[in-house]
Amino acid sequence: MTTQALGHQLMVEFYDCDKQMLDDLAGIEKAMQDAAIVSGATIVEKVFHRFSPFGVSGVVVIAESHLAIHTWPEYGYAAVDLFTCGTEVDPMKGFELLEERLGSQNMSVVEMKRGLLPQANGVHKPLAVDAEMPDFAKNGNGAGNGHFQHSNGNAHTKVA
Amino acid sequence: MTTQALGHQLMVEFYDCDKQMLDDLAGIEKAMQDAAIVSGATIVEKVFHRFSPFGVSGVVVIAESHLAIHTWPEYGYAAVDLFTCGTEVDPMKGFELLEERLGSQNMSVVEMKRGLLPQANGVHKPLAVDAEMPDFAKNGNGAGNGHFQHSNGNAHTKVA
Repeated sequence: MTTQALGHQLMVEFYDCDKQMLDDLAGIEKAMQDAAIVSGATIVEKVFHRFSPFGVSGVVVIAESHLAIHTWPEYGYAAVDLFTCGTEVDPMKGFELLEERLGSQNMSVVEMKRGLLPQANGVHKPLAVDAEMPDFAKNGNGAGNGHFQHSNGNAHTKVA
Repeated sequence: MTTQALGHQLMVEFYDCDKQMLDDLAGIEKAMQDAAIVSGATIVEKVFHRFSPFGVSGVVVIAESHLAIHTWPEYGYAAVDLFTCGTEVDPMKGFELLEERLGSQNMSVVEMKRGLLPQANGVHKPLAVDAEMPDFAKNGNGAGNGHFQHSNGNAHTKVA
């Protein structure tokens, strides 16, 4: 039985960053927005917040999932998550942009596959609908769902 | 050398969920908000978005980091991240609430420590400030920073 992942998540630890940058709300928001764009993602919404006395948290919701950041300027550290789905988005480009913008001199990246679906399991095949499935699942045409606009074209997820 | 983590992240795969629930924007938003509250987190902002023809993405930014969800109703699957810092927040309570609300019959959880700081490294000690550190880091009183309101009281992160 083979499996495939609906999503991929990069969990990045950026150490030894530019501390002033980590406390710059506008700079962090711009960097995260640019990271989404350079990765080829479609921005849906974003929220950014600066804490007192320091630290910024922010999330960019993209059609292909989300990018999130939390900064600890006093430690020169930022935690970044780049969660994407599909093969048209390349979160490594966002990672590289953020590495440069944050001035990180030391980092680590963990990549995790999310939503591993057994291809042999008929339950997960959108075309294998039956009377017990909810109405939305009976619509075999998933085009327009951001989750699938960037699917990898595999018969398991291809909907357009 | 001992280390300590600034944050903890639960990455949850909720399989075999209630498919109608996964497509219910208001229900998902309420569940995520309640998950934050039951975990003891302080909600800062939230954004939720429903995709066409189906699927919901949403993030609750909390003072202690964030909770995020992405649903694939057609697969009965939801990816949930519960990223918190400090010891006063218990994300497992949020996990249990979501398990019940989403009706998940099958799940997995990966826990990851974020921001591992070497305690022996003076650079990361907020009280060990010097002339080269930015102004914000010279303020030894970090009270009010959401990242630290819920710190574990260890001398390494205690700021109030």
